[in-house]
Amino acid sequence: MTGPRLTPLARSLPQDVPFVGPETQEREQGFPFRARLGANESAFGPSRHAIEAMARAATEMWKYPDSSSHELRHALAARMGAAPDQVMVGGGIDGLLGTLVRLTVAEGDAVVTSDGAYPTFNYHVTGFGGVLHKVPFREDAEDLDALLARAGEVDAKLCYLSNPDNPMGSWHSGAVIEAALDRIPDGTFLVLDEAYIEFAPDGTAPRIDPEDPRVIRFRTFSKAYGMAGARVGYATGARALIGAFDKVRDHFGMTRPAQEAAAAALADDVWLGEVQEQVALSKHRIGQIAQANGLTALPSATNFVTVDCGGDGDFARAVLKALGARGVFVRMPARPPQDRCIRIGAGTQAELDVLAEELPRALQDAREAAPA
Amino acid sequence: MTGPRLTPLARSLPQDVPFVGPETQEREQGFPFRARLGANESAFGPSRHAIEAMARAATEMWKYPDSSSHELRHALAARMGAAPDQVMVGGGIDGLLGTLVRLTVAEGDAVVTSDGAYPTFNYHVTGFGGVLHKVPFREDAEDLDALLARAGEVDAKLCYLSNPDNPMGSWHSGAVIEAALDRIPDGTFLVLDEAYIEFAPDGTAPRIDPEDPRVIRFRTFSKAYGMAGARVGYATGARALIGAFDKVRDHFGMTRPAQEAAAAALADDVWLGEVQEQVALSKHRIGQIAQANGLTALPSATNFVTVDCGGDGDFARAVLKALGARGVFVRMPARPPQDRCIRIGAGTQAELDVLAEELPRALQDAREAAPA
Repeated sequence: MTGPRLTPLARSLPQDVPFVGPETQEREQGFPFRARLGANESAFGPSRHAIEAMARAATEMWKYPDSSSHELRHALAARMGAAPDQVMVGGGIDGLLGTLVRLTVAEGDAVVTSDGAYPTFNYHVTGFGGVLHKVPFREDAEDLDALLARAGEVDAKLCYLSNPDNPMGSWHSGAVIEAALDRIPDGTFLVLDEAYIEFAPDGTAPRIDPEDPRVIRFRTFSKAYGMAGARVGYATGARALIGAFDKVRDHFGMTRPAQEAAAAALADDVWLGEVQEQVALSKHRIGQIAQANGLTALPSATNFVTVDCGGDGDFARAVLKALGARGVFVRMPARPPQDRCIRIGAGTQAELDVLAEELPRALQDAREAAPA
Repeated sequence: MTGPRLTPLARSLPQDVPFVGPETQEREQGFPFRARLGANESAFGPSRHAIEAMARAATEMWKYPDSSSHELRHALAARMGAAPDQVMVGGGIDGLLGTLVRLTVAEGDAVVTSDGAYPTFNYHVTGFGGVLHKVPFREDAEDLDALLARAGEVDAKLCYLSNPDNPMGSWHSGAVIEAALDRIPDGTFLVLDEAYIEFAPDGTAPRIDPEDPRVIRFRTFSKAYGMAGARVGYATGARALIGAFDKVRDHFGMTRPAQEAAAAALADDVWLGEVQEQVALSKHRIGQIAQANGLTALPSATNFVTVDCGGDGDFARAVLKALGARGVFVRMPARPPQDRCIRIGAGTQAELDVLAEELPRALQDAREAAPA
């Protein structure tokens, strides 16, 4: 015997991972990054109330978490205009997406997404044996019409849309999404990932009745609330679906300190406003740095700026590599033609000083590595 | 349309949950428990170094966690006499069990466990469509011979054993388990849950080469390390299996503060020793309280004492209910004849004062509710 008998599906899956984390990169390259601008984290950190709540909760970490995330869930429901049983709290959008896919996608089931959209969603679909159908971006935005058309063609169970989009930073208005919902093929369910919604212009969030049977929406404390390391996301949707999460989820999977910190963060709108302001300033400066280097910053409704490096994917990959070697952690879109860009997070002014210093050198490195 | 199309498996699953948490019970009953003795938590709390590490890490919670739990995993490997790639860190044993079951159990696959053993393991097996075969306890201990025999009969992919056992507190020596491994049926893989191992007598942990292809062992920071609310468990096993976890796990699912706290807790052997001593004292007093009430405390290698209430399951359930109504949270075994017992956690002296005061009253309540 050579170990347990894995399922045929498990045997068939690759062992690669959706993202290599910056710590892993730092260990491999042997030095720390000077600017951590690649994971769309909030360099401005969480509310001090969230920090204090976590520090207080540390003394209580001997207790299992509240399996229903009662207080946080009720506060989120009030914020979302939903009932508490229309809200599910989970370990980040990543974890919640995994549970949704597990509930809906059996081996061979069709799922539609954009080619180059969130890899972790794809990872879950593949991990449960689903078949991904990918639609190209259109003018650097997720192409709603094409997504819906493909969903109808392949009888997709799920159709993924992030709004605003990662990695391009583009967005659709809420009205456009509301109208799309009315055209969604029968049997297809919309997975609306709003991880970046707090950075988007007013009117970007569609008005959706939580009981709407056509869609579930996901939000997170990882971005605007600065709590990526605490793993708190939430879903709002119809009671029957939210209730179905209880069939398979890890009921005691949340950490108690994160539950407390998230509740405190949610109550601190002043800090949220400050972060939004800092992110806007940071994005403006990234645009200036791009322009000073002859590059084009794309419009962004997120906490990052996607910058067109003016060449092809190989050139952008060379820029990314050169930035990494110079201590600047960024990431980039995976698929052409979006892979002509690199994606730069809204960092602190100190980090952007490093970027301003290293970007021209990295561009020079990249041009020397692959002369035109 | 009435929502997403769930998989046939998801539709078939019940919506009940493995455990109702004490917070849920408190909300339902309308008052808080005075003694929290039901969830096998560590009332003595975590190391102060773990608390400090979490408080420090709170300011860094804006960063995603290290997806490989590098530092913690390396420290655990050193402790376990394993290589780092023979160790997987996850969100408690619960989360790790779920991933193992997902990797190994397809619909219809047979799994063997003891009737009345850990419900969350059963929940995962059912949740992935596995078929549970349950073997009775023998003299209040998991019956290794019967488990192995049944595994052979049903061609079980997995065979679950907790050592020491929850909910009875019984245990087998490491030598017995080593011998059992040599008799395990071809094709059956042993799931060894050692959540309580730090409370067990020397010699309870079997000597197992991490590369042994017949077994995976699980341990946790939830019990002796007092960190149930931080969700940190770990598995040691053969490289090929540990590597397979990477195919499906939520790579960024750990919280960063919990990673830091666990590393600090692991390094504090002094506190671990104090907890072991406090637990032993607390268990001794629970035995005295039981005896003073004419009840029998079973031997325990865990941080709880299972107490034979001297009647049948209905009587023990009545005692449990009466204790709850009096503010004492305990749980009990689910299956006869073990359900003649209640399970009392090693609480603080203040909590045991409450127990000493309320147990005779609860027994009186139970006797009045169901006279002999």
